[in-house]
Amino acid sequence: MDELKKLYRDACKAYNKSKPHFQKCRAVVQHCQQKLNDDAKLGEYGKFAGTPDIQYSAFTSGQAISRPVHPDFFTATNNDFEVNLETVLKIAKDPERKWTDSERKLSSQTIYTAIMSFACCYDLWNPKARKTPGTFFEVFMAGLLQSVFTDIAFSKHIPLTKILDAGGSPPNAEDNPDQDEAISDGNEGDEKSSVATDVVLSAPNKKGGIVLPLKITTRERVVQPFAHQRILDAAFEPGTYKSLIVCISETQLDKEAKKVKQICVPGTIQLFQKYLAPIEGIYYCDVPQRYAKNDVTDVIKVKSIGHLFCDLRQQLAQLKEQA
Amino acid sequence: MDELKKLYRDACKAYNKSKPHFQKCRAVVQHCQQKLNDDAKLGEYGKFAGTPDIQYSAFTSGQAISRPVHPDFFTATNNDFEVNLETVLKIAKDPERKWTDSERKLSSQTIYTAIMSFACCYDLWNPKARKTPGTFFEVFMAGLLQSVFTDIAFSKHIPLTKILDAGGSPPNAEDNPDQDEAISDGNEGDEKSSVATDVVLSAPNKKGGIVLPLKITTRERVVQPFAHQRILDAAFEPGTYKSLIVCISETQLDKEAKKVKQICVPGTIQLFQKYLAPIEGIYYCDVPQRYAKNDVTDVIKVKSIGHLFCDLRQQLAQLKEQA
Repeated sequence: MDELKKLYRDACKAYNKSKPHFQKCRAVVQHCQQKLNDDAKLGEYGKFAGTPDIQYSAFTSGQAISRPVHPDFFTATNNDFEVNLETVLKIAKDPERKWTDSERKLSSQTIYTAIMSFACCYDLWNPKARKTPGTFFEVFMAGLLQSVFTDIAFSKHIPLTKILDAGGSPPNAEDNPDQDEAISDGNEGDEKSSVATDVVLSAPNKKGGIVLPLKITTRERVVQPFAHQRILDAAFEPGTYKSLIVCISETQLDKEAKKVKQICVPGTIQLFQKYLAPIEGIYYCDVPQRYAKNDVTDVIKVKSIGHLFCDLRQQLAQLKEQA
Repeated sequence: MDELKKLYRDACKAYNKSKPHFQKCRAVVQHCQQKLNDDAKLGEYGKFAGTPDIQYSAFTSGQAISRPVHPDFFTATNNDFEVNLETVLKIAKDPERKWTDSERKLSSQTIYTAIMSFACCYDLWNPKARKTPGTFFEVFMAGLLQSVFTDIAFSKHIPLTKILDAGGSPPNAEDNPDQDEAISDGNEGDEKSSVATDVVLSAPNKKGGIVLPLKITTRERVVQPFAHQRILDAAFEPGTYKSLIVCISETQLDKEAKKVKQICVPGTIQLFQKYLAPIEGIYYCDVPQRYAKNDVTDVIKVKSIGHLFCDLRQQLAQLKEQA
């Protein structure tokens, strides 16, 4: 794991310095795939505890077992992954492209494979670093999107000094003139120097932007993007910022039943969408069956991650058209 | 730990069935204290990485080490705890009582000792059950408050069927006539049968209530009570429900520096208070130094848990006075 940790740290370091880092992310994924090939076995794991009938897989190494992996989305060998990624990049970069269903599926598979390769390595060989796979998801997606949308500015937080100014001086702002208060999820220790774990896309010289909360699964943290959107709608003109939540899946292992569950909270999401603030859409690689039902999709768009690129391009075009 | 787990399960079972359960909670604490006395050592741990100069302690057992414990708040022997608890109950039950500072401190110490005894046992001997100490905090406080406020109705969620009705039918409500949608933090798996992790106090035949989000530390979950309050303010008349957040501390170990940090997000709390919804107050056993500063207390009440009983009594009196 030392080599993987080093590659991962290199990618993070470049990302945090706003330097090109996607090649480093690809090197991380390649290393993970090699390591899984060499040191782990992919086998049957358990069925989805619902319909349709899906047999999930998992990696094992000695006594250790990884999170469940959807066999339709995980492409097992490194070679395929790099070929697929090149194809996805080419399609995604073409602004005129009409995506086919199989191209959308390919992009879901490619992202799923990258993130799950990393996450399963950590499950097997460094399970204590629980938050690391989620961070890699953020870093990887930022790199991927930077490769696709080359004329867009990327940042990791929305400066809120202005917001706090509206209600009085920001606390100690004079002590830290270069450090903005950010919408933080509060787990970074020193808030003044912290960044939100969102990726924010904006067009040069235009106000507002697109917020991408990136979460492998949402779980109890699903409230955060809605609360942040509410703050943005209250602090700026509503619609100045829009949020698109990007996830991998909502799967979780039911160890006793040896089944794979999808942890869904449709009522909660409907409440948040109505009473906190509306989110533009939720994108998954492995879309949870429950969220694809009408009572949810009537109030919030739920789509496969294959739709993210086109939808983002459209949102960014709207940003650029502003006065 | 088998005996402790059994005692804990018994307390939870009674609580979930809305049966008197505080004696069972006391038995849990007694067992924890005995076990810590017998099988663990309490020693110096590390200093607070700030001012004032506080030397935190911790329990150790073999290689295992517990979370940091504030020596001023932890009363080490079982005997003291039960005596203290009786004193606190007696004071808290007296509606005319003018609490002294030392009585407030005693109530902080007593609650801190109960919860930390349990949490440290789990840290040492069942560290994988990460959420269990938080659940015990909820169950214990519900029991304590039920013993004090005997004419008050306690529940674990606010039924939101009415809210969802306002915007259309609640999804599948007809399939589950007895199960209300609840404000859920989404980690219970089956949302329909889940309960929110809040304690809600209400007066018989009066609308509204007092919501007590109970969290050992808030961390990134601090957004939840503000978001829930926002939903309640949007769905009901603002002020119908009020929230008082109740916590133990915000301490965390900095393993590298061997120091104890307090993870505080003052800017975030100010933002949430202003742009999500106002919370009535935050109560701590071990009040974080940062939250006691004026820039925070100017926008939200931050108090020691010793103030909770009087403040709750006052809030409940207001509830009862309603038409």
